[in-house]
Amino acid sequence: MYYHDKRLQYPVRVETPDPLFARMLQQAIGGVEGEIRVCMQYFFQAWGNRAPNPKYRDMLLNTATEEIGHIEMLATAVALNLDKAPASLQEEGAADGIVGAVMGGEKPRHAIEGLIHKNLLSSGLAAMPIDSDGVPFNMSHIYASGNVAADMYANVAAESTGRVLAVRLYNAAHDKGMKDMLHYMIARDTMHQNQWLAAIEDLGGKEAQVPIPNSFPQTEEDQKNNYNYYVTSLDGSYPEGRWTQGPSVDGKGEFTVFRNEPLGEEPILGPARPDSGAQKEQIG
Amino acid sequence: MYYHDKRLQYPVRVETPDPLFARMLQQAIGGVEGEIRVCMQYFFQAWGNRAPNPKYRDMLLNTATEEIGHIEMLATAVALNLDKAPASLQEEGAADGIVGAVMGGEKPRHAIEGLIHKNLLSSGLAAMPIDSDGVPFNMSHIYASGNVAADMYANVAAESTGRVLAVRLYNAAHDKGMKDMLHYMIARDTMHQNQWLAAIEDLGGKEAQVPIPNSFPQTEEDQKNNYNYYVTSLDGSYPEGRWTQGPSVDGKGEFTVFRNEPLGEEPILGPARPDSGAQKEQIG
Amino acid sequence: MYYHDKRLQYPVRVETPDPLFARMLQQAIGGVEGEIRVCMQYFFQAWGNRAPNPKYRDMLLNTATEEIGHIEMLATAVALNLDKAPASLQEEGAADGIVGAVMGGEKPRHAIEGLIHKNLLSSGLAAMPIDSDGVPFNMSHIYASGNVAADMYANVAAESTGRVLAVRLYNAAHDKGMKDMLHYMIARDTMHQNQWLAAIEDLGGKEAQVPIPNSFPQTEEDQKNNYNYYVTSLDGSYPEGRWTQGPSVDGKGEFTVFRNEPLGEEPILGPARPDSGAQKEQIG
Amino acid sequence: MYYHDKRLQYPVRVETPDPLFARMLQQAIGGVEGEIRVCMQYFFQAWGNRAPNPKYRDMLLNTATEEIGHIEMLATAVALNLDKAPASLQEEGAADGIVGAVMGGEKPRHAIEGLIHKNLLSSGLAAMPIDSDGVPFNMSHIYASGNVAADMYANVAAESTGRVLAVRLYNAAHDKGMKDMLHYMIARDTMHQNQWLAAIEDLGGKEAQVPIPNSFPQTEEDQKNNYNYYVTSLDGSYPEGRWTQGPSVDGKGEFTVFRNEPLGEEPILGPARPDSGAQKEQIG
Amino acid sequence: MYYHDKRLQYPVRVETPDPLFARMLQQAIGGVEGEIRVCMQYFFQAWGNRAPNPKYRDMLLNTATEEIGHIEMLATAVALNLDKAPASLQEEGAADGIVGAVMGGEKPRHAIEGLIHKNLLSSGLAAMPIDSDGVPFNMSHIYASGNVAADMYANVAAESTGRVLAVRLYNAAHDKGMKDMLHYMIARDTMHQNQWLAAIEDLGGKEAQVPIPNSFPQTEEDQKNNYNYYVTSLDGSYPEGRWTQGPSVDGKGEFTVFRNEPLGEEPILGPARPDSGAQKEQIG
Amino acid sequence: MYYHDKRLQYPVRVETPDPLFARMLQQAIGGVEGEIRVCMQYFFQAWGNRAPNPKYRDMLLNTATEEIGHIEMLATAVALNLDKAPASLQEEGAADGIVGAVMGGEKPRHAIEGLIHKNLLSSGLAAMPIDSDGVPFNMSHIYASGNVAADMYANVAAESTGRVLAVRLYNAAHDKGMKDMLHYMIARDTMHQNQWLAAIEDLGGKEAQVPIPNSFPQTEEDQKNNYNYYVTSLDGSYPEGRWTQGPSVDGKGEFTVFRNEPLGEEPILGPARPDSGAQKEQIG
Repeated sequence: MYYHDKRLQYPVRVETPDPLFARMLQQAIGGVEGEIRVCMQYFFQAWGNRAPNPKYRDMLLNTATEEIGHIEMLATAVALNLDKAPASLQEEGAADGIVGAVMGGEKPRHAIEGLIHKNLLSSGLAAMPIDSDGVPFNMSHIYASGNVAADMYANVAAESTGRVLAVRLYNAAHDKGMKDMLHYMIARDTMHQNQWLAAIEDLGGKEAQVPIPNSFPQTEEDQKNNYNYYVTSLDGSYPEGRWTQGPSVDGKGEFTVFRNEPLGEEPILGPARPDSGAQKEQIG
Repeated sequence: MYYHDKRLQYPVRVETPDPLFARMLQQAIGGVEGEIRVCMQYFFQAWGNRAPNPKYRDMLLNTATEEIGHIEMLATAVALNLDKAPASLQEEGAADGIVGAVMGGEKPRHAIEGLIHKNLLSSGLAAMPIDSDGVPFNMSHIYASGNVAADMYANVAAESTGRVLAVRLYNAAHDKGMKDMLHYMIARDTMHQNQWLAAIEDLGGKEAQVPIPNSFPQTEEDQKNNYNYYVTSLDGSYPEGRWTQGPSVDGKGEFTVFRNEPLGEEPILGPARPDSGAQKEQIG
Repeated sequence: MYYHDKRLQYPVRVETPDPLFARMLQQAIGGVEGEIRVCMQYFFQAWGNRAPNPKYRDMLLNTATEEIGHIEMLATAVALNLDKAPASLQEEGAADGIVGAVMGGEKPRHAIEGLIHKNLLSSGLAAMPIDSDGVPFNMSHIYASGNVAADMYANVAAESTGRVLAVRLYNAAHDKGMKDMLHYMIARDTMHQNQWLAAIEDLGGKEAQVPIPNSFPQTEEDQKNNYNYYVTSLDGSYPEGRWTQGPSVDGKGEFTVFRNEPLGEEPILGPARPDSGAQKEQIG
Repeated sequence: MYYHDKRLQYPVRVETPDPLFARMLQQAIGGVEGEIRVCMQYFFQAWGNRAPNPKYRDMLLNTATEEIGHIEMLATAVALNLDKAPASLQEEGAADGIVGAVMGGEKPRHAIEGLIHKNLLSSGLAAMPIDSDGVPFNMSHIYASGNVAADMYANVAAESTGRVLAVRLYNAAHDKGMKDMLHYMIARDTMHQNQWLAAIEDLGGKEAQVPIPNSFPQTEEDQKNNYNYYVTSLDGSYPEGRWTQGPSVDGKGEFTVFRNEPLGEEPILGPARPDSGAQKEQIG
Repeated sequence: MYYHDKRLQYPVRVETPDPLFARMLQQAIGGVEGEIRVCMQYFFQAWGNRAPNPKYRDMLLNTATEEIGHIEMLATAVALNLDKAPASLQEEGAADGIVGAVMGGEKPRHAIEGLIHKNLLSSGLAAMPIDSDGVPFNMSHIYASGNVAADMYANVAAESTGRVLAVRLYNAAHDKGMKDMLHYMIARDTMHQNQWLAAIEDLGGKEAQVPIPNSFPQTEEDQKNNYNYYVTSLDGSYPEGRWTQGPSVDGKGEFTVFRNEPLGEEPILGPARPDSGAQKEQIG
Repeated sequence: MYYHDKRLQYPVRVETPDPLFARMLQQAIGGVEGEIRVCMQYFFQAWGNRAPNPKYRDMLLNTATEEIGHIEMLATAVALNLDKAPASLQEEGAADGIVGAVMGGEKPRHAIEGLIHKNLLSSGLAAMPIDSDGVPFNMSHIYASGNVAADMYANVAAESTGRVLAVRLYNAAHDKGMKDMLHYMIARDTMHQNQWLAAIEDLGGKEAQVPIPNSFPQTEEDQKNNYNYYVTSLDGSYPEGRWTQGPSVDGKGEFTVFRNEPLGEEPILGPARPDSGAQKEQIG
């Protein structure tokens, strides 16, 4: 079960509210690279973890709980960036811009409104669980496979795209407070990338863990096709690299190259059933 | 651009059609761990790849093209497993089971129909781009971040959950043809896990690539919070592991432990704007 | 604006409630081939219709209004099929079936519950705007393009898949009342298929309407590639048919065959921007 | 920010694992009436709350934090219900049921597998953020309008459908441990229904709060149409009740009845623009 | 079944077309607070209503039918706001604005196009069943629980967020016709909020109806936890209010405060099954 | 199985990158009228095709394979339009526009960023499988009904809305390279509209194929209601056209007009079950 402290994990300050940046920050809340995703992913991985030793479960629970505080920080940052801005525009009678010019006298505020849509209309200038385009987060992005190594790689991927996003936001930010908040979040993503990779080392490293799942005997997989790079280019050319020769990364095979060709035959499904709603011509 | 050969990548044969297994196979087509996902993910990563050297683009293009053939194999397998089964049931007047007993004379076929829903009603006993619960695949699962290392880890994760799924299907399969098809697909997933890890080695390994993105100078991230494991448990206990001490996996820091506490203050958003559709009591 | 009559468009009677059939009927309510789709599609086409003459708008409005009554009929049919059934099972102490045997004493009712999920848990044994797999209808399926001919073909397609679905349900139905209801709905789909095709004839037929949109001058399209069937098979073989030779269906060209090959070059996107969150190796 | 305790909010015990009941419990996790919904709804309402006095924000934060523990309990319950069951079936060679009979020798386990799909294939017998039909939770269901009274009624609605669901699960449960867990959750829903209604009383009751938002002067709304019940039935008949006569519930008007008729004219959109991709016939 | 009149429920007039306002109006069509939602919600509640007395069914049917006319009004308003505007821009060669300046000579029309996306590209300048961000309406938002009191509160919530939205649109509107249309819709929302609250009074008021469902005996719920406010703050502080002391709103208990702590134990799921696709280390 | 050639199907060149046009092009990738849709639709139709003669399967396979190359062309066009543009803005210190003016010193680049959201934040200035509003493509739009005639009409509809979209993009394009690319795609859509209509002629034309499915004996449908146009207008007026009189398009009936009225009775569902979670008042 859980407890809260009203104070934030890290300071969130906005000197110059910027509604467009608020919209960009939404990607870090409800985007597929965002904080709802990692928070819920770590929780579901923890809650469903099956193992003789609960240590990965415990590790996940700490970090999942930490991530709630990140959603909270970002939600606060979105609200602060939306704070007052449109109102002050109206009051100050800011100069007409493109939309005003075009529409015949509308205020620029109108254009801003046109860019933040649901945060204005649906939440009253607050954060929502949506991405920067207003698409709500879909929980199908919570990867919790029941396989701890697959989950750790899914977490590395999540924190990698997460830190890429945070860096893009940092580069787009102009406000000092926002840069400070993001330089903290980027740091936490550094830790979390390392943490999940450390968990794989803790499990014995990729030689022990790959191919995932390592509980399936490789003698039962097709041993003629498990370490060859398939080339599908019409002329047979292919890019050479670490993946075309030398020992495989898991240490259990040798990379080779296979110029791909059909190993099967043309499939034949045959006529449709008379009662299957097909056309007569399909029933034959 | 692309070409096709009518023959399948690998033989797909079904001796005993099994509609329930067809539904399970749908997870490997339209599930988030499925083949549409990896196929489209590799294509979008290739098509959007920016780099001085096109070799990763090329590598991705070969494997994306290979994966179309995997969707094709699975779609064929679903159709063959749905083939004739319900019709022959009716003809053979198979013994009533639970639903028949309950409903008062209905044929077991009815129960089967109740389990394969849309494959019967919407596609006429063929494969669909849905998962085993009938949920259509959503393209938000195509991860193509513009960062090649983040993408490679996303691909490792995709092939890891993909091979876990293929193993589960293999373990659930009873048909010899299906086991043969799956033992081939499991092998290809072994290669692909190795391939994406090899790409990371090709780029210099995780010491060179992590933290992702490596183009952001770590001097700009919060150096007090980039290598410490946060503990959120109320009593301060935590699971020790590779992530709590020793050098970080990227070789750029030292793991430590931080008993988490608020570093920020309670956020204050203040009253709502008079024209924002709030209650009077919020406007103050 | 709209009016209602409490009576149904056509009688809906169920003699033997069948919860599994209720679930199948859901496809005709919330499936992509279902009645919510055609109802809303015709409404949005009517409400957005732009033309000098309002006659297509009017035509659409009548049929959209008719379709509300079809959703109502199906919703009633679902509720009646769910009526009492599970309760009577419990009271009658029906014989254990598979799930009971397996689970150790559970009643068959339990298995039925396991097959109708949300209709039991979320709506209290009533219809929902979901398909037979429980997936909610998504309004992106409302095709209203602003082009009347494109819309008419979309409507033909909708009524074609709709009648295919109704026929499959008719073939799966055992209840006399359900067969009667469906034989009416199949008839209305016959009319509606003819109606939308008649609208195309009313507009001058396909020679006048195709290619859609007919307001774009064909002199501006690539006249070397507008009537040739592209063959992508590796060996150049292709299926001959009406589409490989003879005059085109719109009467404006002659079908020919083109063995496909690249007409463009390999695309080069070049290095990533330094501030774009890519890896250093991509920036070059 | 947040803390955790590894212990559960309330005991979760399962004596007889029941995979079908696990699937039903999924509705209380990822259904629109489920715990993810209330948890995230209260968090987003709290984080975006604008008011001179933070008391509603604080109240929401306590209950949001409580709800994380409910998701955790249910996730544990799902995992325990999926525990061992299918494996033991196989080992014990349980008697064939309907699907076995039909399929020719398959084990009943197979039928169970066919009913729990993604929990087996995608999560390895653990809970997922999906509903009982396998549909992932979509965050668009988080209602946080920026208006505290609207939010309170949304919360009453959420806890009402939530308690209805919990009662249905309680009625369907056979396991003593599950009944105990649910009797606790039903009690918490009782409190939460009362809590949100209490918040409305705390704000002055519905006379003070309705119509929502109360910050919009009613003199600006159409005062001829704000307290009359519209009758759309063709024959003008209507159901009498509290809503057809007497003072309105908000005490600001008197209920009357209006036999509905068009107050506007037929809309005329006129011809399409020449460059808008319409048919020539629409351009006129 | 249903009838239509080509005339609108209420006049819809636009003097100065405004494409950005058209996009905002989309929220009232396809947003979760919009008119498709209430229309379909009342229909499904009516069609599935089970009760000895059909009066709530009838009441719902009248209002559902009224709401179709509201979608129609808004769809007309969107089309009129999109009418001609971009075309006239082009003709008038309006002054370049930001995007033009930036892009090097593009017309402002281009920027407008960039803000209305699908209404331009997908519907030919007409309304669509999408929200202001272009997200299609998802029918999972149709709440029809089979419990009439839960449904009434869901309806109050829907009309509350609906009127909040209408007020925000009214405040953002500059066109006299649009303000007139919205002042009518705001009035209807006032009525509908009152109407659903009146239904609860008609049923005996909240003392008779709460906790919902009132058919579940409260003696079976956990009576130690049904009227206490849980405090999760680390320091035990909590916001006092109507919910912390005094009689509960349903009159069936007394509010108290409980400083939350775990009542259960740490959950133990144990090792994974050997055939479940886990890592070896999880199987133990 | 499949092969690739690194060269593009047709040249894709962009002289003046335009990020807003990139966003518009996204509609042709991930919109419901876009290329992912037709590509996957033709593949699933081919892979599931049941017929004595494989010729339609083969025909579909060629065109599906062609369409992969169209997605590739568009993805390249999006990336090229996003190329460099924002970076050069920053370097050139372009003049402030509306957003800059409003926000107090922000650069116009910022406004552009605010319009391309996820293409900037989530993919690093590359194409994504989303539409012009950032909504990800949902695979439920893949229509493959198992009925070849229904599928052909679905394909005509897809290519009609597809060509309408391509024409709208062509009309909005300013870049010579983009106009060239689109004039090619418009031509291919012309062919594909003709191709699917040719397939219907190949099957015997609409007299042979309609009503779809033609395998259902029309003697079993309600012959009183299969060729009459239903009029729902209150005053009985209706629009005359090809659909109100004369022989039906399928040649199997005669169009007539029916002034609609209820043919059924008011439905009665009766009281709710005692254990169904309803209110006491519903149980009766």
